[in-house]
Amino acid sequence: MPTKTSVYIATSLDGFIARPDGSLDWLDGSGDNETNDHPETQSSGEDYGFKDFMDRIDSMILGRTTFQQVLKFGEWPYTGKHVIVPSSTLSPEEVPERLQPEVKIANGEPSELLSLLDIEGYRHAWIDGGKTIQRFLRAGLIDEITVSRIPVLIGAGIPLFGELVRDVDLEHAQTSCFDSGLVQSRYRVVRSSEEH
Amino acid sequence: MPTKTSVYIATSLDGFIARPDGSLDWLDGSGDNETNDHPETQSSGEDYGFKDFMDRIDSMILGRTTFQQVLKFGEWPYTGKHVIVPSSTLSPEEVPERLQPEVKIANGEPSELLSLLDIEGYRHAWIDGGKTIQRFLRAGLIDEITVSRIPVLIGAGIPLFGELVRDVDLEHAQTSCFDSGLVQSRYRVVRSSEEH
Repeated sequence: MPTKTSVYIATSLDGFIARPDGSLDWLDGSGDNETNDHPETQSSGEDYGFKDFMDRIDSMILGRTTFQQVLKFGEWPYTGKHVIVPSSTLSPEEVPERLQPEVKIANGEPSELLSLLDIEGYRHAWIDGGKTIQRFLRAGLIDEITVSRIPVLIGAGIPLFGELVRDVDLEHAQTSCFDSGLVQSRYRVVRSSEEH
Repeated sequence: MPTKTSVYIATSLDGFIARPDGSLDWLDGSGDNETNDHPETQSSGEDYGFKDFMDRIDSMILGRTTFQQVLKFGEWPYTGKHVIVPSSTLSPEEVPERLQPEVKIANGEPSELLSLLDIEGYRHAWIDGGKTIQRFLRAGLIDEITVSRIPVLIGAGIPLFGELVRDVDLEHAQTSCFDSGLVQSRYRVVRSSEEH
């Protein structure tokens, strides 16, 4: 089995992962969100299955923009996960020293990045960051998508999904509704025979 | 109570109501869909609550493009509903004679079109058609949104949602999952005090 790939992300009902300037204040209206991966910073303490998801993955391919945003948090939220940041411009020295054992910069096509994980024995990678998710979807290299819909329309922003070379068929696996109004749906991607 | 307004529509998981050329073949892959309002043409006979919805409305504001598309079907699917088609270019004579008692062409702002229904005693209007839905949302004149997500990404097309003058907060009312993989969520729009 090749390394499994999952997307796990929150969007507005109109499909945005962030406002045009990257801000995430709409996630719970409190303006204190640092990432839309896990809106568990809400006062309820509900984590929307984020810990369970984290327990299932052993690695990440984390887009450069998101990586640099996460670095500003202070605390690194992905301790214990092997992380590849796809970039042709970042140098390894730009990764803080404490993170260097776990975080690698790599330039390459999605399939090459995945091979890096596969060869080292990683079994399940979280694919994160807007452009990175779109690249992997276009390459037909996403196995599972979990979308958490926040009950708000924000009108403009950075879309989760982008252009494709062909339709991507999905199988609905599960939907959960939460008291906050968040609706989380998990889909398996039906890979076309051309791709594998 | 002013006339209630509801959106009831199917979209791809990436938020499109039709491909760029208007086609709806992705609704069930069979290519025989005439409208995405009611993907009940699927072989299963499941109507995804469409008849119940139709029983709840007494009127429609139906965008001109969608109206002209529906006219091509042959059979008029909205018998018994009072329909307003917002248009500054269509003339009343362009409405087939058999439909003239039920279908009116009217030019005006969303609030003016709604007033026409309100004055005549209609209590619940289905707002349909891509541009029309967006105009009513921007005007703060939608009460309820039911979105049926089809499990497919199509990459490009006519989006359900568009730009807004401010965020639109929603309350999640109900989500239903169907064997076909369709996930249907109903939301109530939280109207801001500025609007009413």
